[in-house]
Amino acid sequence: MTNNSKPILAVTMGDPAGIGPEIAVKAFAEKQVYEQCRPILMGNAEVLRQIMEVIGIRLALNAITSVDQARFEWGTIDVLDHELEGGASALRWGEVNARYGDLAFRCVVSAIRLALEGKVDATVTGPIHKAAINAAGHHFSGHTEIYAHYTDTRKYGMLLADEHLKVIHVSTHVSLRQAIDLVKKPRIMEVVRLMDTALRQMGVENPLIGVAGLNPHAGDNGLFGSEEAEEIAPAVEALRAEGLKVEGPVPPDALYALANGGRYDGCVAMYHDQGHIPFKVVGFDWDKDKGTMKSVKGVNITLGLPIIRTSVDHGTAFEVAGKGIASADALLLAMDYALRFCKAK
Amino acid sequence: MTNNSKPILAVTMGDPAGIGPEIAVKAFAEKQVYEQCRPILMGNAEVLRQIMEVIGIRLALNAITSVDQARFEWGTIDVLDHELEGGASALRWGEVNARYGDLAFRCVVSAIRLALEGKVDATVTGPIHKAAINAAGHHFSGHTEIYAHYTDTRKYGMLLADEHLKVIHVSTHVSLRQAIDLVKKPRIMEVVRLMDTALRQMGVENPLIGVAGLNPHAGDNGLFGSEEAEEIAPAVEALRAEGLKVEGPVPPDALYALANGGRYDGCVAMYHDQGHIPFKVVGFDWDKDKGTMKSVKGVNITLGLPIIRTSVDHGTAFEVAGKGIASADALLLAMDYALRFCKAK
Repeated sequence: MTNNSKPILAVTMGDPAGIGPEIAVKAFAEKQVYEQCRPILMGNAEVLRQIMEVIGIRLALNAITSVDQARFEWGTIDVLDHELEGGASALRWGEVNARYGDLAFRCVVSAIRLALEGKVDATVTGPIHKAAINAAGHHFSGHTEIYAHYTDTRKYGMLLADEHLKVIHVSTHVSLRQAIDLVKKPRIMEVVRLMDTALRQMGVENPLIGVAGLNPHAGDNGLFGSEEAEEIAPAVEALRAEGLKVEGPVPPDALYALANGGRYDGCVAMYHDQGHIPFKVVGFDWDKDKGTMKSVKGVNITLGLPIIRTSVDHGTAFEVAGKGIASADALLLAMDYALRFCKAK
Repeated sequence: MTNNSKPILAVTMGDPAGIGPEIAVKAFAEKQVYEQCRPILMGNAEVLRQIMEVIGIRLALNAITSVDQARFEWGTIDVLDHELEGGASALRWGEVNARYGDLAFRCVVSAIRLALEGKVDATVTGPIHKAAINAAGHHFSGHTEIYAHYTDTRKYGMLLADEHLKVIHVSTHVSLRQAIDLVKKPRIMEVVRLMDTALRQMGVENPLIGVAGLNPHAGDNGLFGSEEAEEIAPAVEALRAEGLKVEGPVPPDALYALANGGRYDGCVAMYHDQGHIPFKVVGFDWDKDKGTMKSVKGVNITLGLPIIRTSVDHGTAFEVAGKGIASADALLLAMDYALRFCKAK
């Protein structure tokens, strides 16, 4: 922590055409946020002014160029102002635009730099749009990869967290075929250790971690697939020898149901969808009548970085951007998780 | 239907050492079951007598050798009696035993034969234990494969159903690597058609079916994996040209969350766990304090057979067998689904 006072959080606005600016404003409007931390918004003042008019929340804006200019007073958003090329006057909600992608990208990189320099205690990211980022010439598949690159980190993992499930992934944005090739003992051991550390930082004493199998029924004693016997079981055994509380390989269709009920403190998923599917089934609440998501609970945390990074686990939701109906729940939860990690530092 | 009266259901007892006999007795004890159908239990009278003593439910047993001997009176279980080699006097709950596996297997085959002969209207299966079945020399990976074999069916699919989710699988008991190879346009079209027919039989008019992608984010426009472009999207297009209401490939981590909220009437899963994970997360209710499943909702239905087959979607639960605490909810739901299909015949 920068001093004895409350932690400073750098929150990124996300893509200006998505719901990021709206949920940021809604979160910064909460008095309780300022009771727990000192937040700075990495964004663009003009964009924020526009969204505040749309949603009818009026907060003052303090456009700043360095952290020490921030006031940290509830009622005023301290925005570390980043230029939007061409200006924000004709902002079009829901548009994939390289200018928007470039702004969102620069906000993320600024947040990372401030954290590396120790000027903020943690970073919290709003939703960016990959196509917009890439159209602007920044070739990354997501925040996780941007953070890994700018912090020069090679051993990292994507953790999804809500009140019930905590899931870390052996691999993320690769084809399922490639994901199978990445199920290797050293990598499994790496993510279990990251998970164990993170759970302790989140206040779980002596956490129990369930490691999934890769194949149906965890291979059913070698009947379908050999990865359980060759990679996963040996990793679990070696980790136990190190003193970690680990079980597995657990049949994938049982692990998340059990963890959701409290049987495990954390889960290790062998590939992106093995962890993302149960997480989103539990956390997403679809409103059939309105055809929209009622609420989206869930925080995405990058483990293994030299800095703290938490994030909403939903996207830009272009289809509802600029309508004033987006929920800030996930962003508030992400800020809450960032604070838990600050306390553990 | 055999006549104008209520449908006859052949219910199999499952492995005698598991919770199958207990949940069967509990289901047959329900008056409402006899109001809706004429049930016969394929099992062993001695085993049933033992479990009734343990759980304190006393029903009369009418041991029969053919369907026409059944009385179909609430308060009496008509059990089509199958011999347990060596007798049931020293039945050991939770034991993997070839004798038990052989009994369970013969009950299933009898049920299939009665249905093929038209002597029963539908079959409902209790949980069997694969290792016990195989120890008895019956080399099948599960009910689905036994049914396919004894009904000489080649185009079939495993449907999981509960009140919210209906999921059919492109493949089931194969390694994940092999499952990827089985993601082919003709097979996808086959299971979507099976699903469409089944949903209509279950009373859904004009069903909307969501077809999952295989890779994370459904391949993210070809960035990770090519199966979406080469197999899945062409299948969806061809099915639409046939007049079916189909959407996809949908990102796997969104599809089941959306379907659970009512966005889709049915889902097509590209592999076993893609469908089983969300289904079990939603349907299983783990009691952390007791270390047991509080309830397990969910029915497993084999589509494409010449006969009706529904089943509980849980296993033998050897760890709680003989304790009297198993829930018959899933079996009652499986019987209910069998009746829905009987009505549609």
